[in-house]
Amino acid sequence: MICQCIMPDEMSRPLIQGRGEGGSSRHLEATMSDPATPVVGILGTGDFSRSLASRLVASGYQVVVGSRTPKRSVALFPEEAEVASQMEAASQADLVFVAVFPEHHSTLVDLRPALAGKTLVDVSNSLHINQKGPSNAEQLANLFPESSVVKGFNTLSAWTLQVGPRDGSRQVFLCSDSPTAKSSVAQLCRRMGFIPVDMGLLSASLEIENIPLYLFPSWRIPILCTVSLFIFFYLYNATRDVLQPYTTVGKSVFYKLPIETVNVTLPSVALVMLALVYLPGLCAASLQLWSGTKYNRFPNWLDRWLTRRKQFGLCCFLCAVLHAIYSLCLPMRKSARLKLLSTAFKQMKEGKEELWVDEEVWRMELYVSVGIMAFGLLSLLAVTSLPSVANTINWREFTFIQSTLGYCALFMATLHTVLFGWNRAFDPGQYRYYLPPTFLLVLILPLVVLLGRIALFLPCVALRLKQIRRGWERSRHIRFILPDNDNRNGLEDVSNV
Amino acid sequence: MICQCIMPDEMSRPLIQGRGEGGSSRHLEATMSDPATPVVGILGTGDFSRSLASRLVASGYQVVVGSRTPKRSVALFPEEAEVASQMEAASQADLVFVAVFPEHHSTLVDLRPALAGKTLVDVSNSLHINQKGPSNAEQLANLFPESSVVKGFNTLSAWTLQVGPRDGSRQVFLCSDSPTAKSSVAQLCRRMGFIPVDMGLLSASLEIENIPLYLFPSWRIPILCTVSLFIFFYLYNATRDVLQPYTTVGKSVFYKLPIETVNVTLPSVALVMLALVYLPGLCAASLQLWSGTKYNRFPNWLDRWLTRRKQFGLCCFLCAVLHAIYSLCLPMRKSARLKLLSTAFKQMKEGKEELWVDEEVWRMELYVSVGIMAFGLLSLLAVTSLPSVANTINWREFTFIQSTLGYCALFMATLHTVLFGWNRAFDPGQYRYYLPPTFLLVLILPLVVLLGRIALFLPCVALRLKQIRRGWERSRHIRFILPDNDNRNGLEDVSNV
Amino acid sequence: MICQCIMPDEMSRPLIQGRGEGGSSRHLEATMSDPATPVVGILGTGDFSRSLASRLVASGYQVVVGSRTPKRSVALFPEEAEVASQMEAASQADLVFVAVFPEHHSTLVDLRPALAGKTLVDVSNSLHINQKGPSNAEQLANLFPESSVVKGFNTLSAWTLQVGPRDGSRQVFLCSDSPTAKSSVAQLCRRMGFIPVDMGLLSASLEIENIPLYLFPSWRIPILCTVSLFIFFYLYNATRDVLQPYTTVGKSVFYKLPIETVNVTLPSVALVMLALVYLPGLCAASLQLWSGTKYNRFPNWLDRWLTRRKQFGLCCFLCAVLHAIYSLCLPMRKSARLKLLSTAFKQMKEGKEELWVDEEVWRMELYVSVGIMAFGLLSLLAVTSLPSVANTINWREFTFIQSTLGYCALFMATLHTVLFGWNRAFDPGQYRYYLPPTFLLVLILPLVVLLGRIALFLPCVALRLKQIRRGWERSRHIRFILPDNDNRNGLEDVSNV
Repeated sequence: MICQCIMPDEMSRPLIQGRGEGGSSRHLEATMSDPATPVVGILGTGDFSRSLASRLVASGYQVVVGSRTPKRSVALFPEEAEVASQMEAASQADLVFVAVFPEHHSTLVDLRPALAGKTLVDVSNSLHINQKGPSNAEQLANLFPESSVVKGFNTLSAWTLQVGPRDGSRQVFLCSDSPTAKSSVAQLCRRMGFIPVDMGLLSASLEIENIPLYLFPSWRIPILCTVSLFIFFYLYNATRDVLQPYTTVGKSVFYKLPIETVNVTLPSVALVMLALVYLPGLCAASLQLWSGTKYNRFPNWLDRWLTRRKQFGLCCFLCAVLHAIYSLCLPMRKSARLKLLSTAFKQMKEGKEELWVDEEVWRMELYVSVGIMAFGLLSLLAVTSLPSVANTINWREFTFIQSTLGYCALFMATLHTVLFGWNRAFDPGQYRYYLPPTFLLVLILPLVVLLGRIALFLPCVALRLKQIRRGWERSRHIRFILPDNDNRNGLEDVSNV
Repeated sequence: MICQCIMPDEMSRPLIQGRGEGGSSRHLEATMSDPATPVVGILGTGDFSRSLASRLVASGYQVVVGSRTPKRSVALFPEEAEVASQMEAASQADLVFVAVFPEHHSTLVDLRPALAGKTLVDVSNSLHINQKGPSNAEQLANLFPESSVVKGFNTLSAWTLQVGPRDGSRQVFLCSDSPTAKSSVAQLCRRMGFIPVDMGLLSASLEIENIPLYLFPSWRIPILCTVSLFIFFYLYNATRDVLQPYTTVGKSVFYKLPIETVNVTLPSVALVMLALVYLPGLCAASLQLWSGTKYNRFPNWLDRWLTRRKQFGLCCFLCAVLHAIYSLCLPMRKSARLKLLSTAFKQMKEGKEELWVDEEVWRMELYVSVGIMAFGLLSLLAVTSLPSVANTINWREFTFIQSTLGYCALFMATLHTVLFGWNRAFDPGQYRYYLPPTFLLVLILPLVVLLGRIALFLPCVALRLKQIRRGWERSRHIRFILPDNDNRNGLEDVSNV
Repeated sequence: MICQCIMPDEMSRPLIQGRGEGGSSRHLEATMSDPATPVVGILGTGDFSRSLASRLVASGYQVVVGSRTPKRSVALFPEEAEVASQMEAASQADLVFVAVFPEHHSTLVDLRPALAGKTLVDVSNSLHINQKGPSNAEQLANLFPESSVVKGFNTLSAWTLQVGPRDGSRQVFLCSDSPTAKSSVAQLCRRMGFIPVDMGLLSASLEIENIPLYLFPSWRIPILCTVSLFIFFYLYNATRDVLQPYTTVGKSVFYKLPIETVNVTLPSVALVMLALVYLPGLCAASLQLWSGTKYNRFPNWLDRWLTRRKQFGLCCFLCAVLHAIYSLCLPMRKSARLKLLSTAFKQMKEGKEELWVDEEVWRMELYVSVGIMAFGLLSLLAVTSLPSVANTINWREFTFIQSTLGYCALFMATLHTVLFGWNRAFDPGQYRYYLPPTFLLVLILPLVVLLGRIALFLPCVALRLKQIRRGWERSRHIRFILPDNDNRNGLEDVSNV
C-alpha cells in the first residue's frame, strides 16, 4: 500500500489518530478526498458551545453539535454547523468537545460506545479552587475509559472564542494521558489561532481547572503589605500631626486628614515598599555567602518573596504616583490659599518686608527636584514591567533597568526623604508625644538596604559571591570547577541584587 | 514504494503538496535529498517583494524573483536570492508570491501553464474598503483556475517583513479554497516567525483585504460621542460662566475660555462617558429580566455598544487625565496669582484678619482627595486595558477589575462631583440664564446607573438574573435544566454588569 | 513496508530524524509503542540545566541529565528526570542539550561516538559581543563533526525556562546547518510553549550569541543626543538666567538651578528631539525628489536615523513628562510662595489695587492650554509605541497616529513655545551677554521641519513624490510602470513623513 504524502498541520490526520484502529484506513481515504472538513463534535448548547462552534466553523472545520433538543437549538448556532441529537453527533465526530456542566457528565454515559476510541475534550470549570476529589476531567475519564480525555479550553471565555485571539498570544493549556489525543487537540488549537501549552498528564487537570478561578494570587501579600503599612503610617501621622495639636494646644487641624496626612503617608509606604523590593536579594546573597554555596535551597518565605518583587515594586509605584498627584494638588486647595493670605496679612501688620530664608528655599528646591528624578526612574521601571515591553528586552537590559536603575531610584527616593527631613530629627519639638518624626522611621529600611548593597560591592565580598554563583563551594576541599553552564543565564533572579 | 519518514514542520513537504500531480514523485526525491531549500518564487520587484525575499532567505528558503527586467533588478535583492525572468521564476518555484499591483495581474496570464497546479499567494491590497466586485484574490483565482490561490500577508508592512516579528505575535490572516495550499502557506508563515490565522475559504479574502484599510472603526462612535459631549458642555459652560457675566454685569472674564472653561467641561465629559460604559450592561440585564431568557438576541445597537465599552472607557480616561493636568495647572497661572494678590489687598484694606471658612475648606479637601482616588482607580482600569496586561489575567480577575473596581471608580467620580457641587444646586444665583449648574446635568446619568446597579443587587432580582444566565427560561412551563456548559466562561460580556 | 500514519507535532518523529541512519527503523518502532516519551539529554548540572530539565519534564519529555558526579547532582533535579553519567546520558538520548561552559566543551570529546548522528543544542553565551574567531556553536560543531549542532535557547534565562512563557510570545532563535535537526528542535521549542524563530545556517550563531549581550543598542544615539542637548541648554540657561544677574547686578538667584533652570531646559530638549523625529523623513523625501527615484539606497546615517525615530520620540516624551511635572511643582515651592508674599507686600506699600495685565494673563492661559494639548497628543503617541498596542493597529492606523497626530503634536509644541516666548525676542533686555533667549534657538529646527512638511504638501511636489514612491523614475525616458506591488504596504518607513 502506498502511503500518500501526509501534510503536517493538516487536521484530518490527528483527528484520525485519535480514533480507534478499526476502519482507520477506509476513513483515511475518505478524508483525503475532502481533507478540509474533519468533523468536530460539540456536546452541549450553551454560550461556550455556540462560540466554539462559530470559531471552529471559521477555522474551516465541519462541526456537528449534539443537543438534547436539536430542533430548538438549531437557531442558536451558525448555519454551517449541523445540529443533531447527541448520539448522532457522537457517532459522526472524530473529536468531541464535552461542553456540558460537569454535574451532568453522567447523563452522557449512553454515548459511551459511540465515543469509544475518540478524543474527548473537557472544557468545564470547577466551582471552587482545589475542589476535593478528582478533577472534572479525571471524572470524565473514569466515565469513558475507552476514550482519550484531554483537558483544555476552560481558560478561554466564550467571548475570546468568538472574536478569536486578536493579538495571537492567547494560550490554551492542555493535558492528557494520551499524547496522540493531546497532539491532535494541540493542532486544532493552533489552527484556531491559539497557542497550545502542554501541561503534561491528566493529573495536571486540577491545576488547569484552577487557573480561571485565581484572583491575583501573586498580588495578595504585596497588597496586604501596602495596606498594612498605609494604615500604620496613617494612624501614626494622624496622631502626631492632628491629634497632638488638638489635645495639647486645642488647635483643630482635622481638615488635614483627607489630603495632608494622606500625602505624608503615601511616600512613607512607597519608600518602605521599594526597600522591600531589594531586601530579599540582599538576604539571598547573604545566605549564599554564609552557607558558602549556591546549591542550598532558599527558605520558602525567601523564595516566595523573591518572586513577588515585581508586585512589591508596582505597589510602590502606585503609592509614588498618588503621592505625586497629592503633592501637586497642595497649592490648589482653598486652605493653602487662605493660609497664604493670612501670612500676607500678618507680614503686613508686622511690617516685615522679607521672609526669605535661603536654606529653607534651597532645601525645598532640592528635595522637589530629587523627588521628581526618583519618580522618573520609578516610571521607567514600571514601564519596563509591562509584559510586552519586558518581552522586547534581553536579560542584560532587564537587569540593568531593574537592578542598576532600581538602586538609583531607591537612592534618589532616600535622598528625597533625607532632604525633606533635614535637621528636624534634632529638633525636640518634633518628638510630639515622644514619637519620632515619620521620616526617621521610614529611613531605616532603605538605609539598611543601601548599606547592604555597598557591602556587597566590597572587593572581597563581591569576588566570593561571584565565585559562589559560578558554582564554587566552600565545603569542597579541592576547588573543583564543574563544567557547568555559564550562569549568566542561570537562575539570575537571585543575583539580581 | 517505501514512504520515507516525513518530518512535520518541514517545508519541503507542503510545498510539494501545493503542486500538481505530474512529476510529483520525481521532485519529491529531489527535494528530499536537499530538504532545506524548497523554492519560493516572487513575482514583482517592489519594496514588499524585496523585504519578502530577505525574510524568506533568512528563514532558510531558496528564493527566485521573477522580474521583467532581471538585470536591473538584481542589485535590489539580497545576493542569496536568484533574480530571473518571470517565466523562469514561475517554472522553478513550488510556491509563488504574486507581489504585483492587482491592476497588473492580467499581465501574468502568459505564466498560466508554468503556474498550473502551484500555490499562488496574493499579497495585494485594495484601494478602498469593500471595493465593488470580486476581491483581488478572487480575480487572481479566476485568471489562474488551475492554481490554488491563497490570500495573505497583505496585512504586513514591508518593514515588519524585513525586521521580522520582533515580539513573535504578528498574525498573518490566510484564506483559500484549497486547504492543502493554505496549510503549506501557513507552514511557511510559521517558519518566518509569524502566526498564521485561518480565515476559511477564499470568499473571506475581501475581508482580509479590508483589514489594512480600516482606520480605528471601533473608535468612531466613542470618539464622536466624546467630541459631541465636549462641544455641548463647553458651549453650556461658556454661556453660563463667561457670556452671562459679560451680558448682565459687563464683567469681561473671557480669559477663562482656554483653561477654566475647558477644565469644567472635561470632567463632565469624563463622568458621562464613564456612565455610558456601564449603562449598556444594565440595559442587557434589564432586557434579559424582561424577556425572561438569555436566548433572545440583543438589538444591534446594544450589541455594538457592549463591544465598544473599552473604547468608551479609554475616552473617559483621556478626559480624566486632561482634567487632572488642567486642575493642577490652575495655581500656576498668572491669573490665579493676580487674583490672590488682589484678595490680599482687599483683605488688608478691609482689615479682616481671617477668611477661614471651615465648611469650604473641608469640602475642597474632601473632593480633591476623592477625585484623586477616582483617578487612581481609573488608571488601574486603563492599565489593565493594555493588551499585554489583559492577556496575563484570567476572566475572574478581568471581571473583578473592570466591573467591581470600575463601579468603585464610577461611585468615587460621582461623589467627587457631588462634593464639588455641594449645596450650589439650591442657590438661585447659580441658575444663570435659568440654566442649572453643569454638575446637575452631569450627575443624572451616573446616578441612574448606580441606582440601577443597586437594583440588580436586590436578592429577588439578582437570583432571577442568575437563573436566566444559567439557562432558565420563563417561557418554558416546566423548568428543564439543559445540561449546558457552565456559563462561568459563557458569553460573560453581558453578565459583566 | 507499510508507512504508519505519522502525527505532525509528535515529538517522537523529529527526534528520530535527528539521529543517524543506523537502527532508525528499530527505534522507530520502540518510540511508536510509547510515543510520549522521547528522550532528551542534558549535559551539565548548572541552574540552566536544572530549569531546562523541569520545563522538559513538564512538557512531557523523558529527560536524562549527564553529570560528572551523578550522585551529588541527583538532589538538584526534579525526580522525574534521570541523572546519570555523561556517557550514559549521551547514549540514551535522541537529542542532547549541551549546557556546560563553552570553555569546557573540549572535556566532552570522549562522548563523540555516543553523540554521533544526534542533534546537539548549544545553549551557551559568549562573554563579549562579537568575540573573535568562531562562535561557541561553531567550535562545538568542529568538535563533533558527526553530530548536528543547533544553536539556540541562549536568549532565555533559567527563570523564564522554569516558569514557562507566561504570555506565549517568548521567541527562541535557532540556527543550524542541518534543517532536520533544526526542525526537530523547533518542534521541541514549540511544545515547551516558546516560539522558534529560524535564523538560518550555523554561521548566524555568532549573531544569536550576541543577542543577550546587547545593552539597548538602538537607544545609544537617541540617549546621547538627549543628554548632550540637555547639557548644552542647561549651561546656556544657567549662564543667561543665573550667572548673568550675579555678575552684572550681583543678584544671587542660584536657588533657581535645581528647578527653574531644569524646567526651562527640559522643554527645549523635548522640542528639538521631536523635530529630530520628523527631520529624517523630510531628508528622505528630499533625497528621493532630488535623485528622482526611490531605488537609490539612502546614505547609512539616514537609514539608521530613520529606524531610530521611535527612540527619539520616546526620549522627547520623557523630557515632556518631566517638564510637565516640574511645571506643576512650581507653585508648590517655598520660593514661589515667598515671592508672592513679597509682591503682596510691595503692592500694599505702593497702594496699587490692580496688577492685572490682560495681555499677560491671556498669553499664559493660552500657552498653558496649548502645552497641555501637545502633551496629550504626545502621550497618545507614546501609548501607541507600546509593542502590544502597536501590534493591534494596522499600518494605516499606525501612520495616522505617528505621522498625522505626530505633526499635530509638533505644531502644538511649537505654538506653545512661541506663545511662551511672545514678544521677548524683540526685547533687547533679553539678550543677556548678547545671548538670544533660549526659545529662539529652540524654535529653529521645529520651524524648519514644519515648513518642510508644508512644502511637501504643495501639489507639484506632492504629486511627484507620490509618483516616485509608486516606482516612477526620472532617469527612464519612457515612463514605464513596473507591475510592482502596491507600495501602500511597501517600505513605508520613508513615506511616513
